[in-house]
Amino acid sequence: MSKPLFDTLAIIGPGLIGSSIMRAARAQGAVRSIVTSSRSPETRARVVALGIADKVVATNAEAVQDADLVIVCVPVGVCGAVAQEIAPHLKTGAIVSDVGSVKASIVRDMGPHLPDTVHFVPAHPVAGTEHSGPDAGFAELFENRWCILTPPEGTDKEAVDRLSAFWTLLGANVEIMTPEHHDLVLAVTSHLPHLIAYTIVGTADELETVTRSEVLKFSAGGFRDFTRIAASDPTMWRDIFLANKDAVLEMLGRFNEDVSALTKAIRHGDGDALFEQFTRTRAIRRGIIDAGQDTPDADFGRPHGHDD
Amino acid sequence: MSKPLFDTLAIIGPGLIGSSIMRAARAQGAVRSIVTSSRSPETRARVVALGIADKVVATNAEAVQDADLVIVCVPVGVCGAVAQEIAPHLKTGAIVSDVGSVKASIVRDMGPHLPDTVHFVPAHPVAGTEHSGPDAGFAELFENRWCILTPPEGTDKEAVDRLSAFWTLLGANVEIMTPEHHDLVLAVTSHLPHLIAYTIVGTADELETVTRSEVLKFSAGGFRDFTRIAASDPTMWRDIFLANKDAVLEMLGRFNEDVSALTKAIRHGDGDALFEQFTRTRAIRRGIIDAGQDTPDADFGRPHGHDD
Repeated sequence: MSKPLFDTLAIIGPGLIGSSIMRAARAQGAVRSIVTSSRSPETRARVVALGIADKVVATNAEAVQDADLVIVCVPVGVCGAVAQEIAPHLKTGAIVSDVGSVKASIVRDMGPHLPDTVHFVPAHPVAGTEHSGPDAGFAELFENRWCILTPPEGTDKEAVDRLSAFWTLLGANVEIMTPEHHDLVLAVTSHLPHLIAYTIVGTADELETVTRSEVLKFSAGGFRDFTRIAASDPTMWRDIFLANKDAVLEMLGRFNEDVSALTKAIRHGDGDALFEQFTRTRAIRRGIIDAGQDTPDADFGRPHGHDD
Repeated sequence: MSKPLFDTLAIIGPGLIGSSIMRAARAQGAVRSIVTSSRSPETRARVVALGIADKVVATNAEAVQDADLVIVCVPVGVCGAVAQEIAPHLKTGAIVSDVGSVKASIVRDMGPHLPDTVHFVPAHPVAGTEHSGPDAGFAELFENRWCILTPPEGTDKEAVDRLSAFWTLLGANVEIMTPEHHDLVLAVTSHLPHLIAYTIVGTADELETVTRSEVLKFSAGGFRDFTRIAASDPTMWRDIFLANKDAVLEMLGRFNEDVSALTKAIRHGDGDALFEQFTRTRAIRRGIIDAGQDTPDADFGRPHGHDD
């Protein structure tokens, strides 16, 4: 056990990410006590049953009053309202952070509500699963994953260092960049892939010539991987696309141009162009494995029977 | 060990699929002996070293001469040439099959070369990984996966039954459909997802504002799943898109319409339309898990530390 980095951690919204932070923070001895809040009596009851917080309260105001680290883990679209709600109750010197998948809009929506007596350090742990809710969380979610901090200009350096130490203790690799650059990077590595996955799963479901049962049965050929992505939380993703509209539209425009080029190659039977593109993308996969963000083991959507 | 279903199995092309069939057939006692052929001395040496065939020969003609089951496991684009090459050497009464991911073009390319003294039963085991070559194969690849047989009209029913029994013994669930319907089903469950994955990985690699190193680092947010698909064998996929051009272009057209609709929803800030689409696709994911084609375990591109 390390020496606790904070006395009291408040998690606003004990969902997949919030409950994972609580589990990881406790497992690592990162904080002395954990308080969490949810308006929903069912969610509060689940958190109590799971025993992952020291205190479970009904209002965000009560949750934050003694906290020296407050992490807002709610959909991006309601972060502004939560900031406004908690602002009068924040302890002087507290660090306020979040886990939103977009950052420029978070700075814009939360920043103005927060008093000068606290330190606002937005964060985005790049980790998750397609499951939601307090039961879906687990302590290892952030291990060897990236957590991007996007402190607005002028943020207290010590506050940034303390939050960075917290995420490092939870197993994450911390990177610091501007909110705007973060949004561009994530538009391509996360938002565009999700949009495409949501689209193709919808397209498949609307065919007249191929039944839904056939799509489900023969999904192992590639479609299955898209459905995993397209099963992510709808509210969270609606908010992300609305909040990161410009970067997503920019990436979509480029993607569409590239789809057109490949479509043309297929229509004209240009095998060389197809082969060249497919060879190039293979090298990128290799890079991801080398970067430690995936294993080379083949994935069949079930535990690997043959090599682990 | 079951009673062997065939005396001699010839595998033309001991790659991922071919070598997996050899391993599975031997593990299940499905055949008495296995012969395989490859023009490449390196590949032959690997197969000998792996010990997965009883005989390894340099020519396809020699491989098929004593075989009562011949399975052609080469890229779709060369199946016609292989059929022409082996035709004069096939044993009377032999069953000739393949493993191609498209079927109408296989029937068209291979069928006319094969003599009336053999039974031609095209097949497509819907299974695979992004790895290639004899070392990538494993005996469990077909377990609980689908194998689609597409016998041309007038094919001997007993031959279809025997091949069906073979694939069942290897662990697959067998389904029979027309080559044309197969190609439509696979266009949406496999070919379109691959094309999209190849595209988006290429798009990401060409950005000026986001570096390749950033794309690799932050790929866990969704992009990573696309790179796995986009790492599949380039020759195989070039041939598939050329051979199933019409069905792929049809599916691409529908996909593009759906991308446009979602793009418009983002541009106009229509959160309700996004939420509705994202909720619908979640139900489809549930159907795939119920259909046994995936597990509900979250996937992080690494062995699941928390629940298995």
